[in-house]
Amino acid sequence: MVLPCVESLRLVDHHCHGLLTRDLDRAGFERMLTESDAPTPAGTTLFDSNIGFAVRRWCAPVLDLPPFSGPEEYLARRREIGVDEVNRRFLRAAGISAFCVDAGYLPEPLMSASELGTTCGGTGHDILRLERLAESLAVDIVTGQLGVTHFADTIRERLAGAGPTTVGLKSVAAYRVGLALPATRPTDREVTAAAREWLAMIRRGAPIRLASPLLHAFLIWTGADAGLPIQIHVGYGDADLDLQRCNPLLLTGLLRALAPTGVPVLLLHCYPYHREAGYLAQLLPTVHMDVGLAVQNVGRRASAVLGEALELVPFSRFLFSSDAFGLGELYLLGALLFRRALSAVLSEGIADGDWTESDAARVADLIGAGNARRIYRLGEPGRETTAVTSSRARDSLYCAAEDSRTGPSS
Amino acid sequence: MVLPCVESLRLVDHHCHGLLTRDLDRAGFERMLTESDAPTPAGTTLFDSNIGFAVRRWCAPVLDLPPFSGPEEYLARRREIGVDEVNRRFLRAAGISAFCVDAGYLPEPLMSASELGTTCGGTGHDILRLERLAESLAVDIVTGQLGVTHFADTIRERLAGAGPTTVGLKSVAAYRVGLALPATRPTDREVTAAAREWLAMIRRGAPIRLASPLLHAFLIWTGADAGLPIQIHVGYGDADLDLQRCNPLLLTGLLRALAPTGVPVLLLHCYPYHREAGYLAQLLPTVHMDVGLAVQNVGRRASAVLGEALELVPFSRFLFSSDAFGLGELYLLGALLFRRALSAVLSEGIADGDWTESDAARVADLIGAGNARRIYRLGEPGRETTAVTSSRARDSLYCAAEDSRTGPSS
Amino acid sequence: MVLPCVESLRLVDHHCHGLLTRDLDRAGFERMLTESDAPTPAGTTLFDSNIGFAVRRWCAPVLDLPPFSGPEEYLARRREIGVDEVNRRFLRAAGISAFCVDAGYLPEPLMSASELGTTCGGTGHDILRLERLAESLAVDIVTGQLGVTHFADTIRERLAGAGPTTVGLKSVAAYRVGLALPATRPTDREVTAAAREWLAMIRRGAPIRLASPLLHAFLIWTGADAGLPIQIHVGYGDADLDLQRCNPLLLTGLLRALAPTGVPVLLLHCYPYHREAGYLAQLLPTVHMDVGLAVQNVGRRASAVLGEALELVPFSRFLFSSDAFGLGELYLLGALLFRRALSAVLSEGIADGDWTESDAARVADLIGAGNARRIYRLGEPGRETTAVTSSRARDSLYCAAEDSRTGPSS
Repeated sequence: MVLPCVESLRLVDHHCHGLLTRDLDRAGFERMLTESDAPTPAGTTLFDSNIGFAVRRWCAPVLDLPPFSGPEEYLARRREIGVDEVNRRFLRAAGISAFCVDAGYLPEPLMSASELGTTCGGTGHDILRLERLAESLAVDIVTGQLGVTHFADTIRERLAGAGPTTVGLKSVAAYRVGLALPATRPTDREVTAAAREWLAMIRRGAPIRLASPLLHAFLIWTGADAGLPIQIHVGYGDADLDLQRCNPLLLTGLLRALAPTGVPVLLLHCYPYHREAGYLAQLLPTVHMDVGLAVQNVGRRASAVLGEALELVPFSRFLFSSDAFGLGELYLLGALLFRRALSAVLSEGIADGDWTESDAARVADLIGAGNARRIYRLGEPGRETTAVTSSRARDSLYCAAEDSRTGPSS
Repeated sequence: MVLPCVESLRLVDHHCHGLLTRDLDRAGFERMLTESDAPTPAGTTLFDSNIGFAVRRWCAPVLDLPPFSGPEEYLARRREIGVDEVNRRFLRAAGISAFCVDAGYLPEPLMSASELGTTCGGTGHDILRLERLAESLAVDIVTGQLGVTHFADTIRERLAGAGPTTVGLKSVAAYRVGLALPATRPTDREVTAAAREWLAMIRRGAPIRLASPLLHAFLIWTGADAGLPIQIHVGYGDADLDLQRCNPLLLTGLLRALAPTGVPVLLLHCYPYHREAGYLAQLLPTVHMDVGLAVQNVGRRASAVLGEALELVPFSRFLFSSDAFGLGELYLLGALLFRRALSAVLSEGIADGDWTESDAARVADLIGAGNARRIYRLGEPGRETTAVTSSRARDSLYCAAEDSRTGPSS
Repeated sequence: MVLPCVESLRLVDHHCHGLLTRDLDRAGFERMLTESDAPTPAGTTLFDSNIGFAVRRWCAPVLDLPPFSGPEEYLARRREIGVDEVNRRFLRAAGISAFCVDAGYLPEPLMSASELGTTCGGTGHDILRLERLAESLAVDIVTGQLGVTHFADTIRERLAGAGPTTVGLKSVAAYRVGLALPATRPTDREVTAAAREWLAMIRRGAPIRLASPLLHAFLIWTGADAGLPIQIHVGYGDADLDLQRCNPLLLTGLLRALAPTGVPVLLLHCYPYHREAGYLAQLLPTVHMDVGLAVQNVGRRASAVLGEALELVPFSRFLFSSDAFGLGELYLLGALLFRRALSAVLSEGIADGDWTESDAARVADLIGAGNARRIYRLGEPGRETTAVTSSRARDSLYCAAEDSRTGPSS
């Protein structure tokens, strides 16, 4: 059912989180399976859902159970095998060769990028969450180690000093203030004033949690100056989110203003605004997108969602991600349902004579791995020494930075 | 074409209106067929539409005509048979075992819930429209039978005193002020002030028509205190509506605040925001949804719409409704097109090996009847004496009320 | 694959632009192919997209190349044949019998409506862009040929004096201020004040570019007074656009207020808001829609988009347009992909027994040509002397103007 060119893809998961390293009971498992943080009412179960059926269909066999085993049987077997072996099995089955891991959300310890890579025989890369950078700087200022007037410059320095394992940045402005961010680059004076206000709130007892449209925008601009690809949470997320503020069209002005920097922006998740994201990605050559997280949650509907998402976006601007968090199942389902969906979309085009098999194979490679390797300069799998090629690709891909004054080399 | 487990379902129609009891000419029929209240331009006909084709395909045979008979022939035969027999035939053909009837909109006399039940051999249940409760209280105050300071308490008393045939409540805030309702529970002082303002407008000659975000929110909170499931109009409706104000995401804050009460909220219709509604229903265990009204209007596209709607929502939180109003045809089409759509969605999953036949049958039963029976505590068909079971179900389903001070027992 | 009744349709393209009359290099071709005005990053190509595949699949054979020829080969052959022959071939292959040409956007010289008609053996008709009318009047006032107090009356006179080749009007308010236009008809006093303000800005050096919600609304009302169908840009467009301001639901109030005039309004493009547009077109009998521009850009997904668009809209209120601009390929793809999509939608309905072949043929004729001929009073192809019939159709289609004081005959 899955095209060989898709089956054999060594996927690059350009956005995921770490693995949980403890065993779970049924309630804990159901709670981690979806984005809801509330238990389901008595007499009902989240296994009666697209993602629940997908677990029973596709994950049960990985644990040596027949497909469609019941939830109790599944959870019992999961505990029997133990979390380490469960994780190892699902990660190997997912067929992912590289992980870009956002470790910015850690309600409890999770595997790091490098541990994840080791577990599955791939490579792990770090995605730095911009808000954590700002929040850790806020701590330094509040504890008297730095003055607030250094806020902007220190962010720049720390971003410029991000180690070689950091391949990209991420903004969660969507969760904090929504995506109606200012379109123009904030001045240092504005940044200092906003930082001062934020720090005053922290000193009055507010939690250390950035939520300032101007500072979120500043972080994104500074990330662009550092020349690192910038992931932005868009659309679908957990119960903490106000989805209406997460429409990617709210970013139109900022994305347009960022385009001349040439730095890739990656709109994550996007559902149910994936068509809107595709429109932006067609119009602005620096805008890229995925439908991660939605893929495993919609289960067998992933091909319908992927078909819609791919309507306008050029195929060089669409990526695979799982957005898996905690459960090994989510890596497998993210990868497997994505493969099936991509295969369905491409097969139908071949069957209808709308493209050739070799076209389909090229598109599969771009979307499944090539675009991510180019954008994050990951090198080829098993040829991690191809730094020269990768750096050349960087030159040809990126335009000159719009404003070199604030660039990393200044 | 329709799965046996779907064909044999005795549907529960958790939201519909009454039947018209007079005969109609063609213009009157076309006007009741869709949500438009304007005649179609000369030389065109509403029969050239998805719902028009569905009438000719599926309703004509019920009147002993060949499928695809023309509009004139159809209307002539309809008048020949007479409205009583027409109603009887369509209701019996619909295969609905229980009706939850919103009798809150009555531009002319319609059949009541109990008459409807009798006509088709099922049971009828009442849905109380919250705005009518407030408007009838407004009359009592304006005519001097009550003081405005009793507004809040009287609403509570009347809701607590709703008879046993009332199984749920409904809000039409969408039509009046849109869904951007306040998220926090209004205080009695705020309610009194808003009621005073409204009554002053009525005394100055305004029509008795509630349109106050605060009072609509108060009614919903009071309904939750009374422990009755609350239907909220969302999305698609008639020409009176400003669709942009009816996006369910506007309700996010209020739904989140209501969740701890455990009282089910039912988002009605939802189209074209059914994916947004599904997102809310995945995240908040008290949120349920349907795509009633849209199903018959989109005709053969119902399976596409249903597939989208079911992407994220757990299957225990999705319900069938026809939202039929006036025409017997709308009950049949609502039920028949829903069966076909649900059957298509489930059959494709079986054919692709994504779920088993028994899974599909369980889901069909939940969506077609079980969820509604659980939520509205309707008991099993033909076993209306199972009150004990039903009451136990109530205990396990509902959490403790958030604020017992304002509860019905205080 | 395409139904005979669709294949044989002589389409009416109710909204397109002119043809480019110079040869293009690859960069120029890629830039005209989509709505983006930026080059694609090095190492990527816009040919890897739905529209790119459609060019290689469907356009290559028209230039005597095998399907799926590569971009370089395709562009070389295109230059070899020369732009005149390329244009002639694509236009003939498109099978369009009449073009309604919006010549209001001319970054460089394009073929006019009549030239376009001659090139393909059809008829050309003019669509007058309302903003150009206002902007040319602004020049007359700024250069002292007219006083600003004549603004409103002069617009009326010039619209009333539009020649017989002008069959409709167009508003691009979406590009200038978005679609949140005032719902009520502006008074002449308001129009004069707004015009005065606009002209003062021009005198202070602003470019002559209308961007005033009140004046855009005034132009639309005046167009309705003149009794000409009014096209309104909605949704999908080029990089200049803020898509979020182009949701047709923003027009709800204005469309409702215009409905009593009986003048047809045509919502253009609509994607990704085509379901919202379909809702408006079901509710308001004067509202029509298309999905032009989207059709060729989404390539083989056109049938999915068309299926969604046709859910609620009565089939007498949906039209074909290509919105082609510059490239001959866009006329062919607009027409060919539309035929395939319409054929797929209709064939599936026939196969499932939801409508008959003759129903499908009637719907195809309405959507592909009949609706446009009725609305724009174009007469039948090859029978351009049927002015009497056409005028009768006008009487029966249109209701009396709401406000005859400001009508063209006053």
